[in-house]
Amino acid sequence: MSESVRVAAPDLPDVSGLVIGVLGGTGEQGRGLAWRWARAGQQVVVGSRAPDRAVLAAAELGLGVRGMDNAACARESDVVVVAVPWTGHGALLTDLHGDLAGRIVVDCVNPLGFDKQGAFALDVAEGSAAEQAAALLPQSRVVGAFHHVSAVLLLDPDVERVDTDVLVVGDDREATDIVQALAGRIAGMRGVYGGRLRNARQVEALTANLISINRRYRAHAGLRVTDI
Amino acid sequence: MSESVRVAAPDLPDVSGLVIGVLGGTGEQGRGLAWRWARAGQQVVVGSRAPDRAVLAAAELGLGVRGMDNAACARESDVVVVAVPWTGHGALLTDLHGDLAGRIVVDCVNPLGFDKQGAFALDVAEGSAAEQAAALLPQSRVVGAFHHVSAVLLLDPDVERVDTDVLVVGDDREATDIVQALAGRIAGMRGVYGGRLRNARQVEALTANLISINRRYRAHAGLRVTDI
Repeated sequence: MSESVRVAAPDLPDVSGLVIGVLGGTGEQGRGLAWRWARAGQQVVVGSRAPDRAVLAAAELGLGVRGMDNAACARESDVVVVAVPWTGHGALLTDLHGDLAGRIVVDCVNPLGFDKQGAFALDVAEGSAAEQAAALLPQSRVVGAFHHVSAVLLLDPDVERVDTDVLVVGDDREATDIVQALAGRIAGMRGVYGGRLRNARQVEALTANLISINRRYRAHAGLRVTDI
Repeated sequence: MSESVRVAAPDLPDVSGLVIGVLGGTGEQGRGLAWRWARAGQQVVVGSRAPDRAVLAAAELGLGVRGMDNAACARESDVVVVAVPWTGHGALLTDLHGDLAGRIVVDCVNPLGFDKQGAFALDVAEGSAAEQAAALLPQSRVVGAFHHVSAVLLLDPDVERVDTDVLVVGDDREATDIVQALAGRIAGMRGVYGGRLRNARQVEALTANLISINRRYRAHAGLRVTDI
């Protein structure tokens, strides 16, 4: 790690013993994150509405990853990453709110629409996907993170390091510290505190800009925060 | 310049002959940008509501910078940067819409509110400051850029390079190319196309997150886009 990476993460907790669940763990983003954490030695559970699909995805990922239905995945985990499409976001969290009680819930969902001109941010009544999660899950500790991470890079076995910063937004300092530390478990990544939950919307929406950048420059763009 | 910087800017136009006007050129952000461009050899005009204040600011900046009232500044310039507080944004552009006709107008205004918990994004009826500018200035070519640049760094004579990428949003390719090239005239900066004007809101609002980052890490944070 470079000097700048170490400066930003002097006091983050040891998260190596935490179990990470990934709801939507059969999707590209979910599988990509699950695989990277499993490679780093983390215990990972992937969840799906259909448990047989979760078991299959887990077997393909290997590295001790387990698969089960979303509710069991939530109960089994200390930290639960929500990596489902925006269309199913509210309904899923409503269903699982009891299973997610007491967990750190990491929302990485981007409410985006697409048309001929590309991607654009959708309006969300609660302000953002992360704030919707917080409203639906009063017994969980909701954090927003991993919005900008390219699933293509995560899943590419030739990519040793996913060189990007992960903006972590939330109002619970202990929870954001843990999620920053979990980002730092993935080679190349660094978790950077990015502000309170009320400022989640623009982090989610910025994914539309990154999609435009990827199109213009034929890239898998990520972000680095300078001077920290 | 590093390899990655050159890859992103192969075909940008030569902008060294353009006159840059800065409305709000007596404020910190405006003076900082004016000074950096003047140092790079660009012709710069700073505008203010009060022409005597503009003349004074120009004299302090030196390097051939001229000062005049905002309307004259707009007419004198090829590219006009709007660096005024959000509260005066709409009224100023309404007043100057004739003077700004035919110009590239670069909006770098961040509609933010502040309270005890820090900064947060304000709702804008048109979606963003840049889209408000576009609505008020149908005869101008509106681009959003320079939202995240630290005025402190811009104005610090000990800072040789302002190492940051500038996200340039807009619907007019020629205009965004010119603004990207103008960003590239400032040592350390790179202009990166960041999507269409409808995706300006989150670029402006992200300034709230950078303010949170600056507070947490005691930094002057900027952004770099990776993989381009």
